[in-house]
This record gives sequence, C-alpha cells and structure tokens, in this order.
Amino acid sequence: MVGYSDHKDDVLRRLRRIEGQVRGLQRMVGEEAYCIDVLTQISAATKALQSVALELLGEHLSHCVQDALRTGGPEADSKVREARDAIERLVRS
Amino acid sequence: MVGYSDHKDDVLRRLRRIEGQVRGLQRMVGEEAYCIDVLTQISAATKALQSVALELLGEHLSHCVQDALRTGGPEADSKVREARDAIERLVRS
Amino acid sequence: MVGYSDHKDDVLRRLRRIEGQVRGLQRMVGEEAYCIDVLTQISAATKALQSVALELLGEHLSHCVQDALRTGGPEADSKVREARDAIERLVRS
Amino acid sequence: MVGYSDHKDDVLRRLRRIEGQVRGLQRMVGEEAYCIDVLTQISAATKALQSVALELLGEHLSHCVQDALRTGGPEADSKVREARDAIERLVRS
Repeated sequence: MVGYSDHKDDVLRRLRRIEGQVRGLQRMVGEEAYCIDVLTQISAATKALQSVALELLGEHLSHCVQDALRTGGPEADSKVREARDAIERLVRS
Repeated sequence: MVGYSDHKDDVLRRLRRIEGQVRGLQRMVGEEAYCIDVLTQISAATKALQSVALELLGEHLSHCVQDALRTGGPEADSKVREARDAIERLVRS
Repeated sequence: MVGYSDHKDDVLRRLRRIEGQVRGLQRMVGEEAYCIDVLTQISAATKALQSVALELLGEHLSHCVQDALRTGGPEADSKVREARDAIERLVRS
Repeated sequence: MVGYSDHKDDVLRRLRRIEGQVRGLQRMVGEEAYCIDVLTQISAATKALQSVALELLGEHLSHCVQDALRTGGPEADSKVREARDAIERLVRS
C-alpha cells in the first residue's frame, strides 16, 4: 500500500498519455516537423509529467501526515527531509 | 510562532543578499553590461530565491506534521492541499 | 530540411530513451513503487526532455541566423519573437 | 550600446519593483508572516525575474541576428552557443 494507491489507475492513464506524447514527438522529428512545433509539444509533455509529480507528491504528503498520526511520528523528520529533497529535484528540473 | 522561527535570522540574511543581487542587477543594466552577464546574474538571484523557498517549505512541512501530532490532525488535509498548491506555484515559476 | 536535420538520429535516440523512462514509470506505479522513487524518475525524465528541447533550440537559433544571412533577414524579427515565445514556454513548464 | 538599450528604463523600473518585492519579503519574514504567504510572494518575485530575463533574451537574440546581418556573421556560431547556455541556466533555475 502506497500513498497513491487510490489514484493508481488515474496516474497510469496519465503516464500512458505522456508515453503517447513522447511517441508523437518521435513521429514529428522523424517527419522533420518545424522545430518550434516540436518544442511546443515538449513543453506540453514536460507540463504533464510535472502535473503527475505534483499529484503524487500531494498524496505522499497526506500519507506521511496520516502515518505520523498513526505511529506517533518517529520517522516524521526523515520523511519530511526526503519529501523536501524530492521537491527540490522537481523545482530544479 | 511560525515554522521558520528558528531560522528567521538565516532567512533574513539570505533575503538581504538577494536584495543586494537585485540592486547589482540594476547597476549592471544602468551601465549597459553585456546582456548574457545580466542573464547569468538573474539566474543566480532566481536560484537563491528558490533556495529560500525550499528552506521555508521544509520547515513548514515539518511544522505541519508536528501540529497534526499535537492536535490529532483535524486540519491536516487542508494544510497538505495548501502546501501542494504552494509547491505547484514554485515548480511553475 | 529543418534546423535539426544533422542531429535527427541523436534526437530520435534520446526520445526513444525518454519513452522507455515513461514506460518504466508505468511499471513502477503498477508495482506500487515508493512514491519518492517515482518522483525521482519523473525528475529524470523531465530533465531529459528539457535537454532535448535545449538541443533543438540551439540548432534552431543557429539555423535562424544562417537563414537571415542568406535571405537578408526579412523574417528575422518574427522568427526571434517565435523563438522567444518557445523559450518562455520551456522556462514556465 | 547593448541589445536592451531601448528598453533600459523599462528594465530598470521592473528591477526596482523586484527589489521592492524582496524588501517586502524581508518585512514579512521579520513579522513572522504565514509561511505559505511568504512562498506565494517568492513565486511572484521569481516570475518577475524570469520575465525580465525573457525580455532581455528576446532583445539579445534580435540584436545578434542584426549583428550577423551587418558583419556577415563571423561570430554567429559562438553567439548562438552563448545564448543557448544562458537559456539553459534560465530553464534550470
């Protein structure tokens, strides 16, 4: 059981859609589509990935708080640090 | 008392440094410095701002978990949603 | 002929690799991998996409300058504006 | 004479506004404002900085093309590479 269990199907559906976008990018490049149009599609795929990440992160944070409430929070500090590092990677990417 | 109380002096010191960077940018533009050098400085100031944001966010998340543990978490859901939205604004900016 | 013609194979190879990363993400989510690990992979795929975008953009800018030199630049202004807008979409995504 | 000469006053005005935002941030932190509100302001200042960067970059690219047209482009390659690196720093920050 992980934080995103309830939303697994939705997350998978969004990832499959992103896979389709990346395959569409290959088709565009194969057909030598105009560079700016390729860039627009890359921005769209990037946004879709970031959006899945934010969804997962929200679920994860909510799960962490629930865990802390259930267990009294012995691991809360390390969990928060871990989440903070993941957020940093997202902001920097 | 807010989440970053313990780090207030450090956060203020970093913000004053960023203020200095932005004043340095004005000096560069006033003296018509080379555009690429101005852009490099803007990237540095942006990174410094993001870094303060990540520090505050880490403190905030840790505080939220502690609050939830103390109060039994009646507000935990709305707090997590609020943090998630703030992270989204950071990722998108 | 587009700006990235010379690098088409390299760009396609990188996009196929990103497609593999997105399929790997689906596998991870299907197996309920730990959320933070999923987020790390999303950051990696996002970075790889941004990196392809920067490569294409570099080729495109260089092509625009060459075009301007060949044609005397009647379209240079609209091309620069178009590139600027594409950069904005990248920075904001 | 640099690429942004015509817009110098506008750029300076925007940078002074950003300086004010950063001073406002110091005031908020000094008064221990709610963390999420501080983060919202940081996102606003970051966006304003990125927006100045995009403005300068647009001017710079347009200037580079004009320079290439005037001089026949001996430096065009190194200028494009330089711009590409600056864009990378912006995207990554």
